[in-house]
Amino acid sequence: KKSYDIAVIPGDGTGPEVIAEGIKVLNTASSRFGFNLNFNYYDFGGDRYLKTGETLPDSAIDELKKFDAIYLGAIGHPDVKPGILEKGILLRLRFELDQYVNLRPVKLYPGVECPLKDKGPEHIDFVVVRENTEGLYAGAGGVLKKGTPDEVAIQESINTRKGVERCIRYAFEYCKKRHKMNKLTLCGKTNVLTFAFDLWERTFYEVAKQYPEIEVDYAHVDAITMWFVKNPEWFDVIVTDNMFGDIITDLGAMIQGGMGIAAGGNINPEGVSMFEPIGGSAPKYKGKNIINPLAAICAGGMMLEHIGEDKAGKMIEKAVMEVTGKHLKSLAAGKMGFSTTEVGDMVAKYVLDIKE
Amino acid sequence: KKSYDIAVIPGDGTGPEVIAEGIKVLNTASSRFGFNLNFNYYDFGGDRYLKTGETLPDSAIDELKKFDAIYLGAIGHPDVKPGILEKGILLRLRFELDQYVNLRPVKLYPGVECPLKDKGPEHIDFVVVRENTEGLYAGAGGVLKKGTPDEVAIQESINTRKGVERCIRYAFEYCKKRHKMNKLTLCGKTNVLTFAFDLWERTFYEVAKQYPEIEVDYAHVDAITMWFVKNPEWFDVIVTDNMFGDIITDLGAMIQGGMGIAAGGNINPEGVSMFEPIGGSAPKYKGKNIINPLAAICAGGMMLEHIGEDKAGKMIEKAVMEVTGKHLKSLAAGKMGFSTTEVGDMVAKYVLDIKE
Ligand SMILES: CC(C)[C@H](C(=O)O)[C@@H](O)C(=O)O
Ligand SMILES: CC(C)[C@H](C(=O)O)[C@@H](O)C(=O)O
Repeated sequence: KKSYDIAVIPGDGTGPEVIAEGIKVLNTASSRFGFNLNFNYYDFGGDRYLKTGETLPDSAIDELKKFDAIYLGAIGHPDVKPGILEKGILLRLRFELDQYVNLRPVKLYPGVECPLKDKGPEHIDFVVVRENTEGLYAGAGGVLKKGTPDEVAIQESINTRKGVERCIRYAFEYCKKRHKMNKLTLCGKTNVLTFAFDLWERTFYEVAKQYPEIEVDYAHVDAITMWFVKNPEWFDVIVTDNMFGDIITDLGAMIQGGMGIAAGGNINPEGVSMFEPIGGSAPKYKGKNIINPLAAICAGGMMLEHIGEDKAGKMIEKAVMEVTGKHLKSLAAGKMGFSTTEVGDMVAKYVLDIKE
Repeated sequence: KKSYDIAVIPGDGTGPEVIAEGIKVLNTASSRFGFNLNFNYYDFGGDRYLKTGETLPDSAIDELKKFDAIYLGAIGHPDVKPGILEKGILLRLRFELDQYVNLRPVKLYPGVECPLKDKGPEHIDFVVVRENTEGLYAGAGGVLKKGTPDEVAIQESINTRKGVERCIRYAFEYCKKRHKMNKLTLCGKTNVLTFAFDLWERTFYEVAKQYPEIEVDYAHVDAITMWFVKNPEWFDVIVTDNMFGDIITDLGAMIQGGMGIAAGGNINPEGVSMFEPIGGSAPKYKGKNIINPLAAICAGGMMLEHIGEDKAGKMIEKAVMEVTGKHLKSLAAGKMGFSTTEVGDMVAKYVLDIKE
């Protein structure tokens, strides 16, 4: 019997609640499909930081490297200044574990209300491959004459050939395996960010030569926000830098029905990857048993596919589709028609019952 | 009789066609409201560049400074490499004329089809104040070991206290005069771009102290793209940096019905300002008399308000609303139910006929 070690970081706010439902579903899937999942919990997050002043102990990085995957709830605490936990935990894990791809499927599930007119599940089904370790997220920059009228603040986007190329290569491979439209779109701003996106563009078209079966395309980031709303059906896989990826994936989450359903993976194909619902810690819903756990459940499904349990991962996705298609009134917290735990139970039941 | 000197740059593609309709409407407005407009044409754009190799002669900048305003069609030519005309003409004018605010009203006019469900003109009516001379648009950065596996490309966002403060101050003043919700939202990414948006945030809350009547608010750029789709009615005035402004105003254009109607002003309150439809040169529609001229016409209306002809500017807006509300089938090129010139004629007739 195969066995996998999973590090679990439930985190802040509603993180622990949604992760609990995710684990419920993961356990159901593992028992049905005949493998073991060993969960090890870590208490990183706002509460620990407020108690100890520590975001992530240095030893944690090495420890986490030994797992088959990391399952993350949410990081963000109302009593901690913005930036500290994000940088100290989430971004540090992405960077130090070299999770160089942020993978964000944007898919409208059946029964989910889309905020766009005339768009259904047949129109919204694409994937964003976001570079996850460079660009404006490098934290590079500085400030001169702070607090004076002459202050200058500089923020730098650092892009390396290696970092850009491995991300683009991942996107081509992913697009090829996905086998949908065989189309990869580079999202950038070549006409203004002439240093950064010259590197991106050159690398993109060079790597493209090795994938003659993939149609390549380019769109400016500003235009892409328009097409997401007007013509989401144009897209198959999109590759972009860290900052633009952050922006367009949130827009993507909204057109697939919102944070209740949006999951992502922080991927290091040669190392340990981390899966998370992307909605944040939603502190105002904490402890009320009304938050939607589907995003965390979907993240769990992505995690199973990633570690090689494809069938189990796909079954979780199917089960989620049954629940959105047949049961939930809305994806919004408190408006689902069911509690957090009831939604978890329903998904778990489908994971057991659906025919393969 | 008051008289204003306007520099006209029709530019590329459909620029000249939409500018012609704009001028038709402007002339009607000036005759009704009793002022003179003297138009001086400049041929900057792709054709001139392809003939002469010159984007903008140095002398042009000084010449343009003498006008009361600049009226721009579109810059962008299919035979010119992306970046050359944008940087050589559009961005150069914004920078050298120190047009430090890019003003983008996002307003859904009556009769215009909105791509969002359940949103009407009562929900979509806000203004984005985009910094227009700094940030990632500075063109700063560089590349090391180009073309090798060790290549590093850096793009820098440069933000000065002076540049940030004048833009934020403009936004507060604008919000106060607009008198809608008295709410100003800073759009940034404080949790990641800690150098740049620390300056923005500090400046924002400092200036805010001088405007106790204005409610202030903050949103991350990624979240704002979600709210534009889900809750556009939350916004009154938004202030942001150059790059984020570029992105969110295109999304804004889409939710107000698309490029057919979106106009913007590049504002130097102490110098010469430039008004433009933001849709680009749309070369494939060139010469067909099917492009929608309303964005250019709206830009003309903004220009009149800016030079002090408020009544005339507002009348153009009213006339446009009559045309969208009562006549056009769609805003899309070729689908309006009318030609470019017919739409210009209709607006002009309303500008003459509507009671004050
Ligand atoms: C919380 C924040 C630092 C993070 C990011 O900007 O990457 C989030 O928005 C995301 O997209 O995962
Ligand atoms: C054409 C391009 C350089 C320009 C920009 O990025 O500012 C455009 O997108 C705009 O918003 O006016």
